[in-house]
Amino acid sequence: MKVSTQKALFDAVDLDCGQTLAPVTVAYETYGELNEPRSNAILILHAFSGDAHAAGCDANGGQRGWWDNMIGPDKAFDTNRYFVISSNVLGGCAGTTGPSSTNPATGQPYGSQFPQISIADMVRLQKQLTDSLGIPKLLCVSGGSMGGMQALQWAASYPQGVASVIPIASTHRHSAQQIAFNEVGRQAILADPDFSQGDYYGRAYPERGLAVARMVGHITYMSDDSMHEKFGRRRRSASDESDMSDLFEVESYLRYRGGQFVSRFDANSYIVITRAMDTFDITAGRNSLEDCFTQGDTRFLVLSFTSDWLYPSYQSQEIARALRSRNRDVAYVELQSTYGHDAFLLEADGQTPLIKGFLENTFQRLAD
Amino acid sequence: MKVSTQKALFDAVDLDCGQTLAPVTVAYETYGELNEPRSNAILILHAFSGDAHAAGCDANGGQRGWWDNMIGPDKAFDTNRYFVISSNVLGGCAGTTGPSSTNPATGQPYGSQFPQISIADMVRLQKQLTDSLGIPKLLCVSGGSMGGMQALQWAASYPQGVASVIPIASTHRHSAQQIAFNEVGRQAILADPDFSQGDYYGRAYPERGLAVARMVGHITYMSDDSMHEKFGRRRRSASDESDMSDLFEVESYLRYRGGQFVSRFDANSYIVITRAMDTFDITAGRNSLEDCFTQGDTRFLVLSFTSDWLYPSYQSQEIARALRSRNRDVAYVELQSTYGHDAFLLEADGQTPLIKGFLENTFQRLAD
Repeated sequence: MKVSTQKALFDAVDLDCGQTLAPVTVAYETYGELNEPRSNAILILHAFSGDAHAAGCDANGGQRGWWDNMIGPDKAFDTNRYFVISSNVLGGCAGTTGPSSTNPATGQPYGSQFPQISIADMVRLQKQLTDSLGIPKLLCVSGGSMGGMQALQWAASYPQGVASVIPIASTHRHSAQQIAFNEVGRQAILADPDFSQGDYYGRAYPERGLAVARMVGHITYMSDDSMHEKFGRRRRSASDESDMSDLFEVESYLRYRGGQFVSRFDANSYIVITRAMDTFDITAGRNSLEDCFTQGDTRFLVLSFTSDWLYPSYQSQEIARALRSRNRDVAYVELQSTYGHDAFLLEADGQTPLIKGFLENTFQRLAD
Repeated sequence: MKVSTQKALFDAVDLDCGQTLAPVTVAYETYGELNEPRSNAILILHAFSGDAHAAGCDANGGQRGWWDNMIGPDKAFDTNRYFVISSNVLGGCAGTTGPSSTNPATGQPYGSQFPQISIADMVRLQKQLTDSLGIPKLLCVSGGSMGGMQALQWAASYPQGVASVIPIASTHRHSAQQIAFNEVGRQAILADPDFSQGDYYGRAYPERGLAVARMVGHITYMSDDSMHEKFGRRRRSASDESDMSDLFEVESYLRYRGGQFVSRFDANSYIVITRAMDTFDITAGRNSLEDCFTQGDTRFLVLSFTSDWLYPSYQSQEIARALRSRNRDVAYVELQSTYGHDAFLLEADGQTPLIKGFLENTFQRLAD
C-alpha cells in the first residue's frame, strides 16, 4: 500500500489562548474508501513525536507508517471496511502549521512568536479537516498517548460528532511526574545556547539539547523489563572500564536515538507540544471528570498496558470509572505487556481483536 | 551535637583501572566514642551526591547531616553505644580527592585527567581510613543507594573486616534503566559547551547541563505518588496558560533543585561517580552472585522500599536470595513507603527498630 501525505489549507484556527493562526495547513493521510453514507470514517491521532504517516509505505523511501501493524486490510482498523484518516497535529513539524512554518506577518519562521496551543486547539483543527472531507460524524477517534488525549477531547468538544472513542495508554490530565519528565526535556533544550530563545532557524540548531530531551523520553517509553531484555548490561565493544565512549549498549542506543531525532524534529515543536500535553486537563472548567462526558452517546473503549509506568493503568481506570458512573457505554481492558508505554505501538495482537470487535459493533449500532 | 569534618591524608590509593592516585585526602566525620576493644565502630557511606556530614550540626551554618534522623543518641545508629564514621567518597567534591582536587603533577585541578574510579576503589580507600583509626573489624557498614553498593563491596573485599552489612535501597549491579538515567545526566553535562571536556576550572562552569542532570535525578528519587502529594497540578502563580515561566509547582521545584545543586556539586564528579555506579558489578570475575559472599561470617540486613522504582525491591531480593542460598545469615525487609527512592533518607521510623535490633544482636554475638 503506497501512500502519500496530503495537505489541506484552512483560513484560520482560533486558539484557546485567544490568538488566531491564519492561514493553517494540515498534513494528513487517508487509507480505505469513504462509504456512500459517509458513516465509516475513523480518525487516527498520533502521539507526541508522530506524524500523518500512520500506515502503508510512503511514496519516497517506502518507510512504513508508525501504526502500520494496526491500520490496513483486515487489521485492527480494517481499511477494507473503514475510511481511515491520520492527521498531523498543530504545532508539529511534519507538514501541519507549527513553529517552523512561515509566519505570514513576517515572512520568517514563527519561532518564538508561535502561540502556545492546546490539545483542544489541535482537535478544533482536526474538526475542520473532517468537515472539509464531508464527514458528518466520525465512526471513531483513536490514538495512543497524546493521541488518546485528543480522542478524549473529541468526545468532550464534539459529543455529537463522534460515535466512539478509543484512548490507549493515555490520561485525562498529566500527573506531576509526567509534567516533570517533560519539563526536563524542555530545560535540556532551553539550556542549549543554540536555542537562541526559539529563533534558531537558519542558524546553529540546538541539537545537543534536543538529543538529551529525546533520551529522557526514550527511557520513559520503555519498561525496566524491556530495557533489561533489549540491553541488559551488554557492552558495545571490548573497551576497558576507563573508556568513556559507548560503554554499555543502552548508552549507545540512547545516543543513537537522540541523534536520529534531531534530524527529524523541531526543538520549538518539542516545547510547544509538551506544553500542550502538560496543560491539558479535560476537567478544566467542570466540577469533575464525571461531568466531562454528559452529552451525546459516544461509546468508549479504554486500553492500557501493565508495564506502562509513564501512563500507568490507574489513569485509564480513572476515565473508565468516571464514564461508568454516568452510565456511559464504556469498556476498559488492561493488556499484559512488558514493552512499557511503547506497547501501544508494538502490541498489535492484543489490541486487534478488541478494537476490531468494538468497531464492528459500533458500526452495526449506527446502521440499525 | 556540633560536628566538624576532618581530613585524613594517605600516601596513595591503587585503582582498579591500574593507575595510582597519590597523595589522597579523605574527608570524614565521627560521632560517638570508640570503645576500648575497638569493637563498636560503624562505617556509614553516603549516596551519589552526599558528603561526610551525615549527622549533627556542622560547626559553621548549623546544617544538619543528611542522615541526622538515623544517627545520634538513641537513634538507629545509636551514638551512645557505637562509634560512627562517615566518609566522603573518592571522586567526589566534598573534601575527598576528586576531579576538582589539585593534581600534584601539574599543580592544576585534575579535570579531564582524573582517572576512572570504581566502587571497589572507594572501599579500598575507606579501608585505609578505618585502619588508620585503629579499627581491626567494623561492627557494621551501612548506606543507602550507592552507599549500599559500597557496603556490599566491603563484604566482598574484606569479609574478615566487617561483622555486618546493611545495604538499603541498593543493588549489586545497575540495570539497563539505571544506567540509562545516569547516561542522560552525563549527556546533559557533556552537551554543555562550558564543560570544555572537563577542564572548566577557573572558567565558565557547565551549570546548565549539570542542573538538567540533577532534575532527571530528582524525578527518579521520588515516586509518582509522592510527586502527586507534594505538587499535584498546582500552579505557582496565576499566570495564564501561554506563560512559559514556572507554570506548575513541580517545574519550579525541579529548576530550584537543579540550580541549588550546581552551587555544591562538581560536574566532573557527577560523571566519574555515576560511571563508577554503572560499572559496579559485584559478580564481575565470579560465576554468580551466590559466589560473591563465600568467605567470612558477615551478617546481612537488606532493606528496600515498596515505592522505590529506581532501586526496585527485586534488586534487594536478588541479594537476599543469593545469600540465603549459601546459608548466609541474612534478613530482608521491604518497608512500606510512598517516598520512592528518597525513602531511605526519610523513613527513619520504619528503619530504626530493624537496624537497632540487628546492631545490638550483632554486637552481642561478637562479645559472646
